[in-house]
Amino acid sequence: MNVGQLGEFGLIDMIAGIVGKPSRQGMVVGIGDDASVWRADRLLQIATTDILIQGIHFNLDTVTWRELGWKALAVNISDIAAMGGDPTYALISLGLPPETEIESVAELYRGLMDIAARFGVDICGGNISGAPVVVINVSLNGEAPDGLLTRSAAVAGDRIAVTGYLGQAAAGLEMLTSGIDFDPAMTSFLRDAHLRPYPRVAEARILASCGVKTAIDLSDGLVSDMKHIGEASGVAAVIWVDRLPVHPFVSAAYGSRALEFALTGGEDYELLFTVGSGLVDDLQKSLPVPVAVIGEIVAGEPGEVFYLDKKGRRMEWTGRGWEHFRPAEDHV
Amino acid sequence: MNVGQLGEFGLIDMIAGIVGKPSRQGMVVGIGDDASVWRADRLLQIATTDILIQGIHFNLDTVTWRELGWKALAVNISDIAAMGGDPTYALISLGLPPETEIESVAELYRGLMDIAARFGVDICGGNISGAPVVVINVSLNGEAPDGLLTRSAAVAGDRIAVTGYLGQAAAGLEMLTSGIDFDPAMTSFLRDAHLRPYPRVAEARILASCGVKTAIDLSDGLVSDMKHIGEASGVAAVIWVDRLPVHPFVSAAYGSRALEFALTGGEDYELLFTVGSGLVDDLQKSLPVPVAVIGEIVAGEPGEVFYLDKKGRRMEWTGRGWEHFRPAEDHV
Repeated sequence: MNVGQLGEFGLIDMIAGIVGKPSRQGMVVGIGDDASVWRADRLLQIATTDILIQGIHFNLDTVTWRELGWKALAVNISDIAAMGGDPTYALISLGLPPETEIESVAELYRGLMDIAARFGVDICGGNISGAPVVVINVSLNGEAPDGLLTRSAAVAGDRIAVTGYLGQAAAGLEMLTSGIDFDPAMTSFLRDAHLRPYPRVAEARILASCGVKTAIDLSDGLVSDMKHIGEASGVAAVIWVDRLPVHPFVSAAYGSRALEFALTGGEDYELLFTVGSGLVDDLQKSLPVPVAVIGEIVAGEPGEVFYLDKKGRRMEWTGRGWEHFRPAEDHV
Repeated sequence: MNVGQLGEFGLIDMIAGIVGKPSRQGMVVGIGDDASVWRADRLLQIATTDILIQGIHFNLDTVTWRELGWKALAVNISDIAAMGGDPTYALISLGLPPETEIESVAELYRGLMDIAARFGVDICGGNISGAPVVVINVSLNGEAPDGLLTRSAAVAGDRIAVTGYLGQAAAGLEMLTSGIDFDPAMTSFLRDAHLRPYPRVAEARILASCGVKTAIDLSDGLVSDMKHIGEASGVAAVIWVDRLPVHPFVSAAYGSRALEFALTGGEDYELLFTVGSGLVDDLQKSLPVPVAVIGEIVAGEPGEVFYLDKKGRRMEWTGRGWEHFRPAEDHV
């Protein structure tokens, strides 16, 4: 049976069955009214929204509906995490072509519930509509118990650090679009890196409780996201390219392209943050994942970022790869 | 210049300029970070989301971008109103074909701001993406200072009432799609009824403060929305068809089709609510808009609705129009 045959209200009933009872105590009105209502635990409320559109953000030839559900919520949870927040309630807008199979929608919701259950999120409402292509918009609320992380609090002298590894999501996308597999372990790792990112909620809350003030999640890629912090904070940055924690699977699979994936690939959903140099050791002990110090905040043109190699030589993106900076091409 | 030429970050800068400074005191982090943050005035939080998709919900041949902005936020404000809530913070997800003119996006945001300013809503974030057709998803938060209105609190004996008039939005859509105009006053009224609905926020809060517990906004149409209340409350209903407040312009323009528009047209965004008979007189005096009593809640099959004419004869929708009920066609 497909969506056109079942209709909007039948679909909502099916979805309400998959979503089940709320897990959070604060839920007052869930699916089935004009809007959703909850009792907040705290007065400081956080909200984010993100849209995934078929043909732009995903391709149903390479992603399962269940993975799509995971990813649609994951990218929003990651935004709440990047504020130091704890995600709470989600609303899902779906646009579906009428020929979409009902079982596909059920799988999408199972994927949403897979990650919702891991992070204590309740899906409390949404809406369904016809559409020429599949559209999934998630809006997610959260609360910040341990203080906020923003993009705008970096100061000169801060160390720049990143959780976990970089480049694996872009390598996974490259693997999926090229159709070339590796050995089973590497293939599975790279696929999951692209399709089932695991947001750093616990890690961000530890950062916030340790006094970190500045963070962003790596969605656009290090080069873009570092620039966002610099612009918002009114500072420049130096990145030591040889210190980037490129995942060993990425280097093994893609060799010299690994650096490109780590710097500009995006979608790793790790945390990029800045912190006073005195706190770095403590953080590396407190966080359950590796923390790599990859650079420092400096005074300078807001948003300007200098990429330096091991010998301190400046590198730049040429459009073909990362190469040493050539003064003749400098903007004078 | 178009969206593809300006790019995502240029667009966000332009939008931030149109949105301007927040009007609400609680805003902590607005456009330009990973998520938005505000201090709530109350612990009871309300949230809703709704999506508009080009070719499904609107047609750029008959609606201006500014009207589209108004309507996209209006339908969400109406959902918050139908809970008895006061709308507060909105996030906007846009999917835009790259050839979309920048000026169109600016007009869309001017339309969003037109209605945001009227209802004290701050647009605090969102995201922008490419898309094959225009997609606008609004997610809107709110608070309920005067008690909640839900769909599930109607009890047998309640009167069923509706604010304002019915049928004008569907008549407006019919006028726009047929391309047939009326005199300027009627044409302008019907166009606005379809494209610039005015959500009943103040009216719903008066209802809630007077002790009304059950309401829904008329988005799907009276027939559907009455059924929603009945199902959620576990009751049946009787509607006195001759008491429906069909707008005189609708009757004048569309004669016998006016009843169809009023019953099944939808998108009038008036409030349909139930109330103990003793409170009706008070409400009619307290509300700044007309209130019509159109039926009553009765014990019976949840969601069943009986439509009765002036003489108490049962009427039903035949697919061609509203006709007297013929027992031979009853579901035995």
